[in-house]
Amino acid sequence: MDRLDFEGWTCPLPLRDYPRVVLGHGGGGRLSGELIEHIFLPAFANDTLAALGDSARIETPASHRLAFTTDSFVVSPLFFRGGDIGSLAVNGTVNDLAMSGARPLVLSAGFIIEEGLSVEDLGRIVQSMAAAANIAGVKIVTGDTKVVERGKGDGLFINTSGIGAIPDDVDMSADKARVGDYVIVSGEIGLHGIAIMSQREGLEFDAEISSDCAALNSLVEAMLKITKEIRVLRDPTRGGLATALNEIAKASNVGIRLDDERIPVPRTVRAACELLGLDPLYVANEGKLVAVVPREHARRIIESMQSHPLGTGATIVGEVTDQNPGFVVLKTTFGTTRILDLHLGEQLPRIC
Amino acid sequence: MDRLDFEGWTCPLPLRDYPRVVLGHGGGGRLSGELIEHIFLPAFANDTLAALGDSARIETPASHRLAFTTDSFVVSPLFFRGGDIGSLAVNGTVNDLAMSGARPLVLSAGFIIEEGLSVEDLGRIVQSMAAAANIAGVKIVTGDTKVVERGKGDGLFINTSGIGAIPDDVDMSADKARVGDYVIVSGEIGLHGIAIMSQREGLEFDAEISSDCAALNSLVEAMLKITKEIRVLRDPTRGGLATALNEIAKASNVGIRLDDERIPVPRTVRAACELLGLDPLYVANEGKLVAVVPREHARRIIESMQSHPLGTGATIVGEVTDQNPGFVVLKTTFGTTRILDLHLGEQLPRIC
Repeated sequence: MDRLDFEGWTCPLPLRDYPRVVLGHGGGGRLSGELIEHIFLPAFANDTLAALGDSARIETPASHRLAFTTDSFVVSPLFFRGGDIGSLAVNGTVNDLAMSGARPLVLSAGFIIEEGLSVEDLGRIVQSMAAAANIAGVKIVTGDTKVVERGKGDGLFINTSGIGAIPDDVDMSADKARVGDYVIVSGEIGLHGIAIMSQREGLEFDAEISSDCAALNSLVEAMLKITKEIRVLRDPTRGGLATALNEIAKASNVGIRLDDERIPVPRTVRAACELLGLDPLYVANEGKLVAVVPREHARRIIESMQSHPLGTGATIVGEVTDQNPGFVVLKTTFGTTRILDLHLGEQLPRIC
Repeated sequence: MDRLDFEGWTCPLPLRDYPRVVLGHGGGGRLSGELIEHIFLPAFANDTLAALGDSARIETPASHRLAFTTDSFVVSPLFFRGGDIGSLAVNGTVNDLAMSGARPLVLSAGFIIEEGLSVEDLGRIVQSMAAAANIAGVKIVTGDTKVVERGKGDGLFINTSGIGAIPDDVDMSADKARVGDYVIVSGEIGLHGIAIMSQREGLEFDAEISSDCAALNSLVEAMLKITKEIRVLRDPTRGGLATALNEIAKASNVGIRLDDERIPVPRTVRAACELLGLDPLYVANEGKLVAVVPREHARRIIESMQSHPLGTGATIVGEVTDQNPGFVVLKTTFGTTRILDLHLGEQLPRIC
């Protein structure tokens, strides 16, 4: 087929007359069909999607315990260092499934496009979703496209929902933390939020900060090979590490004590946070997890994480205590303690 | 709990300080928690959602053939005669599942809110979703809320994704229409699109036109009790009856001949379409289905539909032929024929 060349992606010819998305692309007619045929289907290539039914038909494993999750992504800007809204939308939902111990199977993709988005940008984002899905080992099997008028959206919003299979012997949830458990994070925190924020504000730091956006399901699989007795997994996205741990402390009615010196905050993130007036413990991550694990398994779990590319920086950052149930307490480098409370809102809007 | 009274819905007290949604409501912190605790959880009350994990854990029936679908709803205005974006979002996804013969089980709900939406409106919409889910017999088990700045959205967009169980002996898809089959519609067409359009344009007709927004799963169940040998089901939403039938004709590589005199278009819809320059065959429906069925079962299927509240107007409107494969041909009241082609875009943007 004759093609127009774009940087890194070639736009198929039938779309040449519409270099920007128009309302009709969301109308379910011929233009919608062209987006599906020339942008979505080739990227997400799989038989289930290609059947183009009102719903996708999928076969689940014999296990009939499923995890089901949804997330809308409204990140601004659409492209950022380390990823884009497409890879973020896939990894975010894959991670939500993985955090319940589920093996991610299939995703849906719902696009809300603002009239005027360049078809080239849409194509690049869809390619990025396909690549991320491929790495995570999931299929995008059903989708939907809507277009809203100029000024009624912001380029592109993507919803992904996902289904995963929960192995029979896995039973993790936020209310399962027990006194004496260790708290592990899988690596350096604060990268995603600061990457987005610095790009949005046009800030330059001495070292470039890239989002850590990644699919964590293979890391979780490696951890589950050590023991199924992991109590809680969370990916500390919006609200960061402090918010994720608050949810666990409240759900389990336990105290969580963190040791500031042990929390891996990169020097560049710390510097950026000081400049921006942010607390790195509340900054979003998109490729990190926090785990609460029984003390006796902690060392072997850490070792398994450190030998995985996404867990090389895994480390114990704190423990579960019977003091201050429902609260997260930080032991500072000065030996004092302070409560890490839930923030009212979000210090960084639209980071995911 | 002390409550503020709103028309038809009472806003719980903790939200009183924020009568309109602010960016922080999407931040994953305390304000997000208040929306969840006081608006979403009470409305969607079920144990799965209340667990508030990163994903919902669900048990599916022994059958492991599942249907999975997603749809984003961007309808404008948010409230219309016969429904609102909430009931539409539930019924639309329930119907997509039902059109593959699946029994809808669970839905997700993803909200993208424009800063400034009134909490009262959000609450009414969530109540409406809960009521629609209750009628359809599905549970909303997982959700997500994002907030975007004023001018970067349009009040509210809702994505719903859904999972259904496909009975073992059901196998419907758009490529299964066969020469000789009859084409059935479940009732009067064009109501949803014209209700939205007339309200948006401030038009008044001699009789009020209400959306037909409804969940069709119980109607499909009634039809499947007659025979599992239904070839194709579609809900003619965006693009209307003509577009749905075009997709079937193309997928099955058959001709479809419609008889204009048999198509139930209400007089008010016809009048509104003439005024607005629209073709009712391309206008969206949200509570109607089109079925392609083997000729020998048609009469009994029609009877079963007519005895269901959502199918009282069920009627045969055409048949599948070996002429003009891939095309839909309309026999007009004047005895002439014309091809009902796919439109380029959509005559009515944002009707769903």
